[in-house]
Amino acid sequence: MTGFWPAGHQSAAAFTFDVDAESAVLWGAPENARRMSVMSHQAYGPLVGVPRILSLLADHGITATFFVPGFTAERYPQVVREIVAAGHEIGHHGYLHEQPSAQSRDEQIAALDRGLDVLAEIAGVRPVGYRAPMWDLSWELPELLLERGFLYDSSLMDADRPYELAVAGTPSSSATSGAQAASSLVEIPIQWALDDWEQYCYLPDISGAGYIATPEQARALWEAEFDGLHEVGGCWVLTNHPFLSGRPARAASLGRLMARIVATPGVWVAPLREIAEHTRSLGLEPRSVQPI
Amino acid sequence: MTGFWPAGHQSAAAFTFDVDAESAVLWGAPENARRMSVMSHQAYGPLVGVPRILSLLADHGITATFFVPGFTAERYPQVVREIVAAGHEIGHHGYLHEQPSAQSRDEQIAALDRGLDVLAEIAGVRPVGYRAPMWDLSWELPELLLERGFLYDSSLMDADRPYELAVAGTPSSSATSGAQAASSLVEIPIQWALDDWEQYCYLPDISGAGYIATPEQARALWEAEFDGLHEVGGCWVLTNHPFLSGRPARAASLGRLMARIVATPGVWVAPLREIAEHTRSLGLEPRSVQPI
Amino acid sequence: MTGFWPAGHQSAAAFTFDVDAESAVLWGAPENARRMSVMSHQAYGPLVGVPRILSLLADHGITATFFVPGFTAERYPQVVREIVAAGHEIGHHGYLHEQPSAQSRDEQIAALDRGLDVLAEIAGVRPVGYRAPMWDLSWELPELLLERGFLYDSSLMDADRPYELAVAGTPSSSATSGAQAASSLVEIPIQWALDDWEQYCYLPDISGAGYIATPEQARALWEAEFDGLHEVGGCWVLTNHPFLSGRPARAASLGRLMARIVATPGVWVAPLREIAEHTRSLGLEPRSVQPI
Amino acid sequence: MTGFWPAGHQSAAAFTFDVDAESAVLWGAPENARRMSVMSHQAYGPLVGVPRILSLLADHGITATFFVPGFTAERYPQVVREIVAAGHEIGHHGYLHEQPSAQSRDEQIAALDRGLDVLAEIAGVRPVGYRAPMWDLSWELPELLLERGFLYDSSLMDADRPYELAVAGTPSSSATSGAQAASSLVEIPIQWALDDWEQYCYLPDISGAGYIATPEQARALWEAEFDGLHEVGGCWVLTNHPFLSGRPARAASLGRLMARIVATPGVWVAPLREIAEHTRSLGLEPRSVQPI
Repeated sequence: MTGFWPAGHQSAAAFTFDVDAESAVLWGAPENARRMSVMSHQAYGPLVGVPRILSLLADHGITATFFVPGFTAERYPQVVREIVAAGHEIGHHGYLHEQPSAQSRDEQIAALDRGLDVLAEIAGVRPVGYRAPMWDLSWELPELLLERGFLYDSSLMDADRPYELAVAGTPSSSATSGAQAASSLVEIPIQWALDDWEQYCYLPDISGAGYIATPEQARALWEAEFDGLHEVGGCWVLTNHPFLSGRPARAASLGRLMARIVATPGVWVAPLREIAEHTRSLGLEPRSVQPI
Repeated sequence: MTGFWPAGHQSAAAFTFDVDAESAVLWGAPENARRMSVMSHQAYGPLVGVPRILSLLADHGITATFFVPGFTAERYPQVVREIVAAGHEIGHHGYLHEQPSAQSRDEQIAALDRGLDVLAEIAGVRPVGYRAPMWDLSWELPELLLERGFLYDSSLMDADRPYELAVAGTPSSSATSGAQAASSLVEIPIQWALDDWEQYCYLPDISGAGYIATPEQARALWEAEFDGLHEVGGCWVLTNHPFLSGRPARAASLGRLMARIVATPGVWVAPLREIAEHTRSLGLEPRSVQPI
Repeated sequence: MTGFWPAGHQSAAAFTFDVDAESAVLWGAPENARRMSVMSHQAYGPLVGVPRILSLLADHGITATFFVPGFTAERYPQVVREIVAAGHEIGHHGYLHEQPSAQSRDEQIAALDRGLDVLAEIAGVRPVGYRAPMWDLSWELPELLLERGFLYDSSLMDADRPYELAVAGTPSSSATSGAQAASSLVEIPIQWALDDWEQYCYLPDISGAGYIATPEQARALWEAEFDGLHEVGGCWVLTNHPFLSGRPARAASLGRLMARIVATPGVWVAPLREIAEHTRSLGLEPRSVQPI
Repeated sequence: MTGFWPAGHQSAAAFTFDVDAESAVLWGAPENARRMSVMSHQAYGPLVGVPRILSLLADHGITATFFVPGFTAERYPQVVREIVAAGHEIGHHGYLHEQPSAQSRDEQIAALDRGLDVLAEIAGVRPVGYRAPMWDLSWELPELLLERGFLYDSSLMDADRPYELAVAGTPSSSATSGAQAASSLVEIPIQWALDDWEQYCYLPDISGAGYIATPEQARALWEAEFDGLHEVGGCWVLTNHPFLSGRPARAASLGRLMARIVATPGVWVAPLREIAEHTRSLGLEPRSVQPI
């Protein structure tokens, strides 16, 4: 696997944060809005978690990627602006955290465009990266993303490092510019083992069976994944939710993980946008994935 | 965060106990009353757990807060009186552990007033603190609590330490006395990671997926949370249920946790009432939370 | 708590085994009979688990209590006879592992009498002890047990050691002999933390969420419970299922636990029958438990 | 248990891999095909997991057994051919991972024959071993397998080592050749504790409650099972799924487990086919299992 990463690096690592806030428990279940405690559990993310995580990232000199649903940006505009001001990347994460695979094509378009509009208006950003809410990409979305000029997606799980994902139907179109840019998206894979939701989230009748990991247990899992991916030249992408990992004990443990990874020789720590741009620069042959 | 806590303290810690007994599995599921083993599992709390916990608190010189549903007080009056006699605080926890967010406003009022009546009659107490059963506060309850003279609630999860929660609609009322007292409640946040239910509770067809933590595993989680909150000047609020944490092995482990926390320099160990009174004395600007 | 246990002992410990075999997954779900793999998973208990456990008990000089549903005795008569021949106690556990609280009074009577008939016919035993399948005693069963001459039940969870359970309606009857014997059952409490089902059982669509403890994790939980109960003079009752704990690794770990407990000074290791007889000899005042 | 295994060996160990890929989440739930992220999660198996596992097996000099549904062979023919080229055994695992116990006899026949046809056509193999998808053998399958010349099944859980499973109805038939070969299948038992699905798999709305073991936790469980089975002369059969255990961290841990087992004196590490052939050579009396 030599030659994939920038000179001097054998693997890459990215810290990403899905700033779902209330949206994560509202889409498809609007009745949850009535549960004030549940809403407060989610609000912890933008109110407390994000500021703490921004400090942590600054302490370790890490630029991260924050996926922000439009609804979050509308409800907490200042928080999103602070993320931008600190130099981090903002990615698209739907408007109300809609599950793409459960939506019609028109509904997916509406969520995509509404999310773009809100991020532009409130934070002045045009994201080049997308992550499907609930990590549940549909087969329609790659083409929709490409039509809107997205460079990358980060929702699939079929590789250890980024690749070019061929997008069906697009090569014949002349409306988009560039050859490869018009026909493929960079895909930066994720995996459930690198998510904090399974480790920490418990919301009765909404999510979780009651198991809540200690911060050290979660760190052991993520560090093992890191060691494994680093060894094979892969791309380690951790996803944390500020309403979960923003708690003091978990943030402290996350900080220890950051320190460990930053100090590992040969790891390129970067936001997903830079990883996507680097991948694009390699001129890889796009991989076609056939629906079933 | 200097200046928040009483002089000489950098954080606060409270041990709280929800004395749910049978009520926790009866509201919304009266058929569970037919299950004698389930009822006995819940009865362990007042019969065995509470006396053991009272001894433990005495051993460590800790004054705690016990949230007691009216139904528990009616079924185990002597137990509630013993908690009072030992100098601990009694808080309101509904009448039959009713989930507020699932009730109409009138039903919430009925549960609130019935709980108050029973606690007055049986234990001679008028609680100033409230905790929503199932940790599921409704948007109506803050106003209802304020109308009844409550000082604080402890059911939300959007902060690391107490704050003044602005209560909608109340400032215009002249029936209540005092300026700030009439328009806000002190909120003392909790969180699922600081609850023993997820660690220990297993009741087939009622709760739990089968994972039962060892007392040391639970303690590791709660101690990590303590270390994190202590570091940032927060307020650590542990919630235990006597029918779970009253078992000998768990109580012994809880005692070790008490010893550790009491011995930590700079921690103010207090019942929630004192923490609420201190918070009120700071004259904080109330925080408005908008429903969705 | 001095004076409760036989001279020289400060606590008691019992190893019990619920030999459910197929019955545990058939009652209320007869369609499971079609699943040959599931049936084989349950059959492991009598075929492999019980012989291994009998050896283990012999190695450690322990007399145990085996609760055997009638259906198990019919399908594996030789296995039940071997348990008897090895000197262990046989307890009643329903006919087809019926959940008493989900049955009518007549259905409960039928299951009780059919179980008694089968155990008499096949193993030549008349059990004096009962444990409710699914640990879900009904309010009717104590009286039904007393009418049939049972000495004890082991299905409730509201105490740390045995007690006399007052049985409603029976004192006025003159059909039964003896004063106290006619009006109360000895109850020997159990608890979910002392069961191997939650630690080990995984059967898709039937039981479990996927967590399978290592034998050392299970042992740590049970040993912590033992230490706690021993300290307070309680009665530690472990329940294992031969189809789960009979596997080599788990049996080996169980053997280490046996060695540890047998070697602990002051513990009286005995089958439940002896514990019940001792409890009866104390002449305790029966405790009345009121249904809700 | 001396005398069961080949001279010089006291136990056996087999590494097996179920190459389910997409089929594991499609049978009975075709709507999952719409979820591109879910499909990619499964595709990781043949795309990344299998090549890595083949390397690992080569490094440790182990010949393994891969159970391959027909659908996987059709979608990833090259992957299956590489498994064959590396000298490993291919077993039958249905066509679309159909759960036999939920199918009619005709449906079972169709899945069995279609799977055989695909494996013959694509990989040029005729498997002698079968493993029921979802580990859920039906009572009809043993006879159907025997009619098609299979030597062994590996789906039951009622023993610590292989045995001859008597097949009902077949002895009277004269269409099959040989006495014992015509009337019994070798059964090589498995168990949920020796599967990686429970340890690692999390797919929202499809499988898992959120618990994801670290590779070291999974290894501790499997190694304990190994130690236990080795001690009693049993047969340790580990089942891994390439889409789960093919990840770098897990594969590295699996490699450490392979090293440990290969280095244990007295263990015979072999593919299931060799274990079945050895078992057949012992001339054991077939065991009859009666349906309920």
